[in-house]
Amino acid sequence: MSAGRINVARMEQRLSLVTLGVSELERARAFYENGLGFVKVNDEPEVAFYQLPGIVLALWTRAELAIDAGIADTGARFSGITLAHNVRSRRQVDEVIGEAAAAGATVLRAPEATEWGGYSGYLADPDGHPWEIAHNPFWTIHPDGSTTVH
Amino acid sequence: MSAGRINVARMEQRLSLVTLGVSELERARAFYENGLGFVKVNDEPEVAFYQLPGIVLALWTRAELAIDAGIADTGARFSGITLAHNVRSRRQVDEVIGEAAAAGATVLRAPEATEWGGYSGYLADPDGHPWEIAHNPFWTIHPDGSTTVH
Repeated sequence: MSAGRINVARMEQRLSLVTLGVSELERARAFYENGLGFVKVNDEPEVAFYQLPGIVLALWTRAELAIDAGIADTGARFSGITLAHNVRSRRQVDEVIGEAAAAGATVLRAPEATEWGGYSGYLADPDGHPWEIAHNPFWTIHPDGSTTVH
Repeated sequence: MSAGRINVARMEQRLSLVTLGVSELERARAFYENGLGFVKVNDEPEVAFYQLPGIVLALWTRAELAIDAGIADTGARFSGITLAHNVRSRRQVDEVIGEAAAAGATVLRAPEATEWGGYSGYLADPDGHPWEIAHNPFWTIHPDGSTTVH
């Protein structure tokens, strides 16, 4: 953890893949694909990959994911990680949360103005994975969907 | 969850932000910034943002994140979410895991060849958040660091 390591860092600043462990792959796929319109891009039946701007989202059985990662799974619903999907207006926050709720999501926090000047709400997918749906007027959503802080 | 919803889906296929809740922001920043070389891009002291290709990574106090999301936090270390950082060779997997371990990460699974034809290992950051470091010869890491399945 010494400051001197900064000059030899080999890890590029990149997140390639986020994997969500699920109890029933078919149920999770129905939520993301039929409910939200995500398009699976791979042929393998045991895992689903969705191409997002710059990164891949995966659904895989949670039991296999825990084994793969070398983690003992206690079945917890929250480990301090949240995902966020930014949209281009406050109205779209309401629309996406309404759409997700209709598709089987649980609303964790109804949309409201935030102290940082945005507007957001949270939902949980059928496996409890938390998504914030946010309008952040200070960040940029580019035409290809990538998100930058400036 | 009816198939008919697919035509009215309003949620674009995008992940804008991944937030890692941490117990001590300074310790977490030291790991990501001094240990791994990540560059903080915002001025606010209470949250750290790192610009990744297409997406933003954030560190925030876990207690505040749980309140923001409307979630009761039991302190669990694994909720079925893993992050992955893909690299361009097997050797880089070993290097990044060695670098992260030297910076304070815990190795959850030592690097090894995988049944899907790649090579990967897992580490946990100082707050337990699991990162897979992987070489996937079937996916593409573009010059800007974005990752695609084709």
